[in-house]
Amino acid sequence: MSLIVVGSMAFDAIETPFGKSDKIVGGAATYIAWSASNFTKPVKLISVVGGDFPKEDLEALKKRGAVLDGVQIKENEKSFFWSGKYHMDMNTRDTLDTQLNVLGDFNPVVPSSYQDCEFLMLGNLAPGVQLQVIEQLKTKPKLIVLDTMNFWMDVALDDLKKVLQKVDVLLVNDSEARELSNEFSLVRAARKILQMGPQYLIIKKGEHGALLFHEENVFYAPALPLEDVFDPTGAGDTFAGGFIGHIARTKDISYENMKTAIIIGSAMASFCVEKFGTQRLTELTKADIDRRLIQFQELVNFDIELV
Amino acid sequence: MSLIVVGSMAFDAIETPFGKSDKIVGGAATYIAWSASNFTKPVKLISVVGGDFPKEDLEALKKRGAVLDGVQIKENEKSFFWSGKYHMDMNTRDTLDTQLNVLGDFNPVVPSSYQDCEFLMLGNLAPGVQLQVIEQLKTKPKLIVLDTMNFWMDVALDDLKKVLQKVDVLLVNDSEARELSNEFSLVRAARKILQMGPQYLIIKKGEHGALLFHEENVFYAPALPLEDVFDPTGAGDTFAGGFIGHIARTKDISYENMKTAIIIGSAMASFCVEKFGTQRLTELTKADIDRRLIQFQELVNFDIELV
Repeated sequence: MSLIVVGSMAFDAIETPFGKSDKIVGGAATYIAWSASNFTKPVKLISVVGGDFPKEDLEALKKRGAVLDGVQIKENEKSFFWSGKYHMDMNTRDTLDTQLNVLGDFNPVVPSSYQDCEFLMLGNLAPGVQLQVIEQLKTKPKLIVLDTMNFWMDVALDDLKKVLQKVDVLLVNDSEARELSNEFSLVRAARKILQMGPQYLIIKKGEHGALLFHEENVFYAPALPLEDVFDPTGAGDTFAGGFIGHIARTKDISYENMKTAIIIGSAMASFCVEKFGTQRLTELTKADIDRRLIQFQELVNFDIELV
Repeated sequence: MSLIVVGSMAFDAIETPFGKSDKIVGGAATYIAWSASNFTKPVKLISVVGGDFPKEDLEALKKRGAVLDGVQIKENEKSFFWSGKYHMDMNTRDTLDTQLNVLGDFNPVVPSSYQDCEFLMLGNLAPGVQLQVIEQLKTKPKLIVLDTMNFWMDVALDDLKKVLQKVDVLLVNDSEARELSNEFSLVRAARKILQMGPQYLIIKKGEHGALLFHEENVFYAPALPLEDVFDPTGAGDTFAGGFIGHIARTKDISYENMKTAIIIGSAMASFCVEKFGTQRLTELTKADIDRRLIQFQELVNFDIELV
């Protein structure tokens, strides 16, 4: 009875209009775990790091309720490294450097202690790796959520289409939804993507919120208007962590509960961008999260009386 | 006890990725009147047209509850004409031609029968003209709403700043809010603009919805995700019409009611873009509007239970 999170654990070096970070700890699985652990424990991780990955960061995640049995540590190799620079609008960025390192030949192994998996969160990784994890699970999880990106649509579309047929929820951003579907209208894009396998599609639009599509239904989650977006790195992963964390806590995979899960994901992402890297996430208290959820309620609450 | 709407009544020629219109009737006051008249009557117009403006369009507006005593008809001159081409994203456009014609030396005259004005909607026009209307009113209306655009920030900023000090609600889009405030963050932009006069600021974000700022409060109205945006011309004016129409009907200028008014404005705008020009607005029934308002409720409705 647990949540498995698959994804990179890595180093990032980030430039934004507000400043520049040194090489700091990042990676999809890291952000997802920090975020999801506010709602559910344990968070069973599957990832790979090099000998350079700080042991204290692994310890901090353990303390937080992460289980690392599925995290391979390759002492003589280096962790995945990404470096990028954000533009003023913070929705677009240039990749300055990518060093695959340990991710280059990653073969995920699902420990036997993870076989009780009910909820599977496949963070952004090669679709072939995501597929390997699904195939190693002896029982189909209640819900499989997959995050991916345009890079995989360009270099591994066939693998991506294969894994899409095995997942329940797909998480992409608006430009990725357009690329995957070849449609500009997000409504048309959603209709096409929902025929590729997933029953639920979440389209993240950054500062413009997120959309959930399911059958003929659509739900619009706002983003909290922020004074400054300091560093958007990991916001999508943090969103995914809040989403799957809430679903795993409530064990309710209805459309109604997914709407709530998206609001929680949006609230978590709104914290993530307030500081560089995972820093803001590591400081969060339950009271912080509750306050922000109330802000989200106030943000969209209105009365309509038909006359 | 009535609503005054000030704005252009004009011709547009529009190109979108979906097609091209001939010279069709448009103008801010036209769209606002078609939209507002679903909620309140009479709608007292102040505008100017040339002899070329179709009499049947004026008649249609009258039938709909518009009063035209404040519409000057200059039989020997030509109506304002605008021609533009929208890009694929429908949020940006190029102006191909602008012929001011009768708008070039427009001096609005407020008829004495309009002096009972409670609600004043100043559609996009030269700020000097907007100011003239305010100054002719013997009693300050309960609420003055002003729409403007970046063009006036470039060529008539001093006049704009003067009129801003006399209005309660300012309506602009996101790029206009950024230009007016010199701030990229919309939260910072709003804070600065709320110091220029208006107590309420509405920032329209097209397909990404609209934000209402008031003191330290913020409200996020979604846009309905649409399969196709056929022609965005007039969507902002239609939004303004729904907004002021609801306010004038309810006579309630509280923050809470403005949130509802923004949802109604958004619903009206979502119809406007479905066909070229005002066509969709002229066909609308109350049942259409009610159905769409229910869609808006469903679009953002969620439950949060703090645990």
